[in-house]
Amino acid sequence: MTSKLWGGRFTEAAEQWVDEFGASISFDKELVEEDLAGSIAHVTMLSKCGIITEEEAETIRGGLKTLLKKAQHGELEYEVDYEDIHLNLEKLLTDEVGPVGGKLHTARSRNDQVATDIHLYMKKQVSSFIQQINQLQTVLVSLAEEHVETILPGYTHLQRAQPVSFAHHLMAYFWMFQRDKERLTDSLKRIDLCPLGAGALAGTTFPIDRTYTAQLLGFGDIYQNSLDAVSDRDFLVEFCSNASLVMMHLSRFCEELILWSSQEFQFVEISDSFATGSSMMPQKKNPDMAELIRGKTGRVYGSLISLLTVLKGLPLAYNKDMQEDKEPLFDAVTTLRGSLSIFTGMLESLTVRKENMQKAVSSDFSNATELADYLVSKGIPFRESHEIVGKLVLNCIQKNIFLLDLPFEEYLAASPCFEQDVFEVLQAKTVVSRRNSAGGTGFEAVRAALETAKTKI
Amino acid sequence: MTSKLWGGRFTEAAEQWVDEFGASISFDKELVEEDLAGSIAHVTMLSKCGIITEEEAETIRGGLKTLLKKAQHGELEYEVDYEDIHLNLEKLLTDEVGPVGGKLHTARSRNDQVATDIHLYMKKQVSSFIQQINQLQTVLVSLAEEHVETILPGYTHLQRAQPVSFAHHLMAYFWMFQRDKERLTDSLKRIDLCPLGAGALAGTTFPIDRTYTAQLLGFGDIYQNSLDAVSDRDFLVEFCSNASLVMMHLSRFCEELILWSSQEFQFVEISDSFATGSSMMPQKKNPDMAELIRGKTGRVYGSLISLLTVLKGLPLAYNKDMQEDKEPLFDAVTTLRGSLSIFTGMLESLTVRKENMQKAVSSDFSNATELADYLVSKGIPFRESHEIVGKLVLNCIQKNIFLLDLPFEEYLAASPCFEQDVFEVLQAKTVVSRRNSAGGTGFEAVRAALETAKTKI
Amino acid sequence: MTSKLWGGRFTEAAEQWVDEFGASISFDKELVEEDLAGSIAHVTMLSKCGIITEEEAETIRGGLKTLLKKAQHGELEYEVDYEDIHLNLEKLLTDEVGPVGGKLHTARSRNDQVATDIHLYMKKQVSSFIQQINQLQTVLVSLAEEHVETILPGYTHLQRAQPVSFAHHLMAYFWMFQRDKERLTDSLKRIDLCPLGAGALAGTTFPIDRTYTAQLLGFGDIYQNSLDAVSDRDFLVEFCSNASLVMMHLSRFCEELILWSSQEFQFVEISDSFATGSSMMPQKKNPDMAELIRGKTGRVYGSLISLLTVLKGLPLAYNKDMQEDKEPLFDAVTTLRGSLSIFTGMLESLTVRKENMQKAVSSDFSNATELADYLVSKGIPFRESHEIVGKLVLNCIQKNIFLLDLPFEEYLAASPCFEQDVFEVLQAKTVVSRRNSAGGTGFEAVRAALETAKTKI
Amino acid sequence: MTSKLWGGRFTEAAEQWVDEFGASISFDKELVEEDLAGSIAHVTMLSKCGIITEEEAETIRGGLKTLLKKAQHGELEYEVDYEDIHLNLEKLLTDEVGPVGGKLHTARSRNDQVATDIHLYMKKQVSSFIQQINQLQTVLVSLAEEHVETILPGYTHLQRAQPVSFAHHLMAYFWMFQRDKERLTDSLKRIDLCPLGAGALAGTTFPIDRTYTAQLLGFGDIYQNSLDAVSDRDFLVEFCSNASLVMMHLSRFCEELILWSSQEFQFVEISDSFATGSSMMPQKKNPDMAELIRGKTGRVYGSLISLLTVLKGLPLAYNKDMQEDKEPLFDAVTTLRGSLSIFTGMLESLTVRKENMQKAVSSDFSNATELADYLVSKGIPFRESHEIVGKLVLNCIQKNIFLLDLPFEEYLAASPCFEQDVFEVLQAKTVVSRRNSAGGTGFEAVRAALETAKTKI
Repeated sequence: MTSKLWGGRFTEAAEQWVDEFGASISFDKELVEEDLAGSIAHVTMLSKCGIITEEEAETIRGGLKTLLKKAQHGELEYEVDYEDIHLNLEKLLTDEVGPVGGKLHTARSRNDQVATDIHLYMKKQVSSFIQQINQLQTVLVSLAEEHVETILPGYTHLQRAQPVSFAHHLMAYFWMFQRDKERLTDSLKRIDLCPLGAGALAGTTFPIDRTYTAQLLGFGDIYQNSLDAVSDRDFLVEFCSNASLVMMHLSRFCEELILWSSQEFQFVEISDSFATGSSMMPQKKNPDMAELIRGKTGRVYGSLISLLTVLKGLPLAYNKDMQEDKEPLFDAVTTLRGSLSIFTGMLESLTVRKENMQKAVSSDFSNATELADYLVSKGIPFRESHEIVGKLVLNCIQKNIFLLDLPFEEYLAASPCFEQDVFEVLQAKTVVSRRNSAGGTGFEAVRAALETAKTKI
Repeated sequence: MTSKLWGGRFTEAAEQWVDEFGASISFDKELVEEDLAGSIAHVTMLSKCGIITEEEAETIRGGLKTLLKKAQHGELEYEVDYEDIHLNLEKLLTDEVGPVGGKLHTARSRNDQVATDIHLYMKKQVSSFIQQINQLQTVLVSLAEEHVETILPGYTHLQRAQPVSFAHHLMAYFWMFQRDKERLTDSLKRIDLCPLGAGALAGTTFPIDRTYTAQLLGFGDIYQNSLDAVSDRDFLVEFCSNASLVMMHLSRFCEELILWSSQEFQFVEISDSFATGSSMMPQKKNPDMAELIRGKTGRVYGSLISLLTVLKGLPLAYNKDMQEDKEPLFDAVTTLRGSLSIFTGMLESLTVRKENMQKAVSSDFSNATELADYLVSKGIPFRESHEIVGKLVLNCIQKNIFLLDLPFEEYLAASPCFEQDVFEVLQAKTVVSRRNSAGGTGFEAVRAALETAKTKI
Repeated sequence: MTSKLWGGRFTEAAEQWVDEFGASISFDKELVEEDLAGSIAHVTMLSKCGIITEEEAETIRGGLKTLLKKAQHGELEYEVDYEDIHLNLEKLLTDEVGPVGGKLHTARSRNDQVATDIHLYMKKQVSSFIQQINQLQTVLVSLAEEHVETILPGYTHLQRAQPVSFAHHLMAYFWMFQRDKERLTDSLKRIDLCPLGAGALAGTTFPIDRTYTAQLLGFGDIYQNSLDAVSDRDFLVEFCSNASLVMMHLSRFCEELILWSSQEFQFVEISDSFATGSSMMPQKKNPDMAELIRGKTGRVYGSLISLLTVLKGLPLAYNKDMQEDKEPLFDAVTTLRGSLSIFTGMLESLTVRKENMQKAVSSDFSNATELADYLVSKGIPFRESHEIVGKLVLNCIQKNIFLLDLPFEEYLAASPCFEQDVFEVLQAKTVVSRRNSAGGTGFEAVRAALETAKTKI
Repeated sequence: MTSKLWGGRFTEAAEQWVDEFGASISFDKELVEEDLAGSIAHVTMLSKCGIITEEEAETIRGGLKTLLKKAQHGELEYEVDYEDIHLNLEKLLTDEVGPVGGKLHTARSRNDQVATDIHLYMKKQVSSFIQQINQLQTVLVSLAEEHVETILPGYTHLQRAQPVSFAHHLMAYFWMFQRDKERLTDSLKRIDLCPLGAGALAGTTFPIDRTYTAQLLGFGDIYQNSLDAVSDRDFLVEFCSNASLVMMHLSRFCEELILWSSQEFQFVEISDSFATGSSMMPQKKNPDMAELIRGKTGRVYGSLISLLTVLKGLPLAYNKDMQEDKEPLFDAVTTLRGSLSIFTGMLESLTVRKENMQKAVSSDFSNATELADYLVSKGIPFRESHEIVGKLVLNCIQKNIFLLDLPFEEYLAASPCFEQDVFEVLQAKTVVSRRNSAGGTGFEAVRAALETAKTKI
């Protein structure tokens, strides 16, 4: 066994399998670039503050940059014996520049170091997710602009309720993703803080300049309390919660794509690139990607619960339990990254079967509300008109026809307020186009909403 | 069975127990004031827009205000047959003002109505939680100000690491709660939106003025998409996530209070008002409230998972599943409300046993890091000094003494760099007072941090 | 404030609102009958073992029975000052029989007492859930027996895959519920243990007979370790996990009922008793109960996570956190009870629209696998036959026809192995009826499986 | 792109990154041995039933065995283009034996194939976990046997309650793990079922013999319904729930080890092999492994929630969402495997500091209950004696002494029932040794319980 860097006090050597269980290098190597960036900033600050000489700093920085280049070319090799990315890099640095490398760890602990790495990592990831959502929203707006006057049934309880513009339906998701983006943006305030200089838990006696290090790393501010700096993982929970909401929205949209792709709906056709066949049933075209994203929702919910469980009841400050923050986090990041990419591609290449949507709204009762409103506009109280229409619908159902097929006499018999214009009112297109209340499905309202939406991307 | 308001089409009467399963009146009556406020605003808008006459509006508004007064005196009686708070109030209104009451439902659906109620409710609750957290922070600052120079062991891995100021330890929590407050404040942007006027899902043909209703209700803005307006429950998930983080922080603090109250630590004594005895063991003074709050963390995590599960894979727009949003939400609100109150009271009345804290830091190795830093300041590389100190500690442990008890010769034998001032350096008070890096535990740093903190309340 | 039973040591009175936060009487009163039963058994054992006199036992037992009668008539009144059901009942008992009532608490603690109550409660509940599932299975078998030869499309990926017997589809759920029943039955082994006599945590010095008490209460065995007896809540987690699985199964079935009730599928019609209308859309018949049960799944998942969170990292033995076991548990019990009842009623009164199911299987490609198998039976390797059929299907799709509509020449052109009998083979009824492998959808196989199933109820 | 095996119908090629998102080969390669075993059994059955010739079977079986050997030597190479382990192996088989390899897929689908693989995998894993728990229990019994008369404080609410035998405390965990073992054993009934032959969802027309295949694979029974067979993932949820309970138990034990290792308790010392140092604080000996296992609890809870979320509301039969079952499962298996191993090793090498435990019980009030019982044995009602003792304890606390230090006159003043033997009664050893009620902490009771326990391993 390689001698451990903290091994002075220890008299027995841990067995290899125990080392492997405790080591984090298998996953925290993901943070190699962040760790090196943090070290470069730290060493620069140390020399600026006179804690090490400029010459020492130059040597160490040179070694760190060499390691960074190697890392980017995949040329670094890590050992489980050096537990984690921090000790591995320290070892590699000392191999590179000699004992002076040991000075890098002055006024720093692995506790504030790992916290800094994760903050740098999350800042990059969250900014990138905001970009991905912007792309998805761009695709949504573009698809919606083509389909302002495409009409499909709007559903509540998966029952047809009222016909709506397909653009309007799509834009409902635009606003969900807009909120996701805003939540991610808000969270950046709590990510963009530098913990470096908090030491193991209590700060340090060295005359460091935390604000300078933070600036070098591009952070907006520093943590105000060293104990908090090393034990805060709130921002990871907040991210997993935000990611869960994005996945939940994707799961709702995927559910609709799956329904719409079924033979029963046939409202859309998913591009062959995003569908698969069956090894036994050659006619099948399965909306695999939509199902997979829907399923992956569970995974991100799971990461959220993992982190919340880890942190419950932990005393201050750093505890080893916190090493369990990374794998759930990385898994959530990877899952969200892939799900957003795939979903955007799937939506961009979607074929919309307008004619089937149109056929659907011509053969249902989704114009019934319109009829009730018609009676209200003739002065009948809402509850009464609602009851009249309910009976007309029942009448149709028993005759296996729709409202447009009912002869005018039957309308008159139900209420003397009906006039011949009732048949125009019952057309799906009329129904949709007249709902121009703000945020409504009327064509004008939808076009106005699209303009508002474009300002948000 | 009382005739259902939507019963026109139905031919069989639902049995009572089915009604009870589906009814929400047993819990959504919590929203009675919000529902009436929403209706008053709606009816005012309807008459302003000429959809009903000013006279009708006056009558309905009068009836609603009567109901509000009765509600505030607990004089309203609800029936399961009228399912939910909305239909119950509509029935009570009609009893009060006659058939004109039916006009209230013009250009409105239960879908946008219930969404409005919850937005009003959450706006009130979240604002109130921000106040509660402010109070807790005030208590924290006040306690911290008393204890800047009270020293206790700082822990990592529940092992004594370095002595810290008790004020510093307390203020770590201040910043956690500060983030909680910021998250709640951020969330208000997504709560402060009015869904009213979205109708069942598609908007309405009536010439309503949604912005006017929103203003009457004090909302900052309206939802831009009617489908989204009735199916958005993101803000409830966001609240439960934020509440989970607050509870997680409380659970960490409670864990520490429980540890500190044990006979082994004896750092604090919880006031009799917040502790209980045992029916079988008369000497016990149990930190019940701290344990209970720690336990209640699970409950809020549970609400979060409930809501996320409900929403996963739901197609647009409203689905009855969404009725399951309220009970987990109300439970989270009640739990958080109580936990914050109780915790604040418990903290305010806490007895701090300074002398025991002091005794603890005099009999441990938490000054070892200081010794390593001392050697570094004499020019020895960190890793080497770390190893020297490790051996000195091992030496002490074998002799069952502490670093301050080790004769100077042993120091010299370990490294020629040691001088007599080492014994001053090893004093806990010296150790703490010298860590004045920004955010550190040094007395000056702590006092500065307290001033910053006070600007946040 | 009423003087607390454990108040001897305390010098300050807890304020009322703190008492309310800590008290459990508002929910643990649910356990009143179990608590009295436990006390009756305990006092009987105490006198049998000579710890109290037979006369004292008689008096106390008399008082307890009076309380039981009152409880069953809802005549007991509880006070928050007496915290929980145990202390409330002890107070009421002393009011009833005088100071001798105090002897009831000999050789017992609230820790083993509450554990006993929950075990008694769970034993009753779990047995009753097993009965409920039996009823649901009976309805399933009965419906399946009517529909052995009713054919509907079988789906994978929500795409039509192969036609199946509706009975076969229903019976898939039978086996899920069968596993639920088996899991509940297995769990009884871990519920049917008596903790009484474990004391606060360590047993007692009194010469009690735990086995005798257990027998009086109908328990199968006693806990073997007193620390475990008072701190074990595993059986509640196990129940919530089992309940989550039942709810998950119901959610899958509800999802299908919701799909099948849509205008796009129209495979079933939910009875009016289990559906509701819309206040704005009179034509709607919403599958509310199915949606509600699907939504309630989240609630039970939430209870499971609550309990797991409460117990994570708790040291032995009893901690107040454990008081948080009851509300999630009671909520899960109530939710599961109602969901099973409502679902069973909904299924029993379901109208199956055979003709629509039949229409569906006549106009899709779900017979394609059959065609591939046909070729295999003519000696063509599976992968090759699969490819031939894939091209035939594509051919049909381009022509907008189905396989039965394709002229024989086209078959011959695709492969010389086709013969005229191919058209018989492609009939849905043929397709289904021939899959008589064990557990398959062939009519014979289904009838055989129904017989097996009946032996499980 | 390699031509897809199900590609006949498809006209566009999926892009590489979409393929990677949908492919499962990166993780389901874990199932390679199970998949080959399943295929060998399937092909054997096919020839036995005359569906393929004995010669064909021999050729295919030979190829499969070659692949198995290669797999065991890590010589198989998989391609993302072949999506999953099933198609990869089929391709490799065809490379090995030519087109006849295509016959292997006769009367089988990937749906029943993957289900079979997971059942085989889980059967092996669960059996192995039962062995691991047996080992842990063996260590527990062995440690307990050494420590029957080692006394430490028993805690409730983390307050010292009554002294207990350390063996008794350890054995509380024995029984928790015993229940875990029983739950795992119960679950085997639901794992030990063979889905093979269910086809894609409906069974098959080929005259297969499912029972024969099941026997060849060592399964106890077959699934009774083909739809259920391919869509059942209950057993994975059940496993993750059982694993969560094991982890919860480990987390409780780890919490205690962490407490006991603290300087405040010093009841145990974790072996150097299972502890680590700090890079900054050389005196630290951190109970890292205990913390890490406690933290990993969150991970298994997360897997449980992932699976439950995936399955919620899924219609029959197979959906691609189900591919998301494997990674959470594999992660739970790996986590549980490692946690049990490490914990067992850590316990085996634990140093128990008897003398510190003994010191603790000599300086607290954990003998107070004994005093109350003493008075009861003199005829004083429990509640009264409880109050007398409460006041004596308060008296001691005010004088800063313990009960054994209180002069006899003070006892007499409190109650005339006290006699000189009270001082003997108050000795910790007396207190413990007298609690010989069944399952109690008395030495005799503990020795008897140890004998019972040994019969369970």
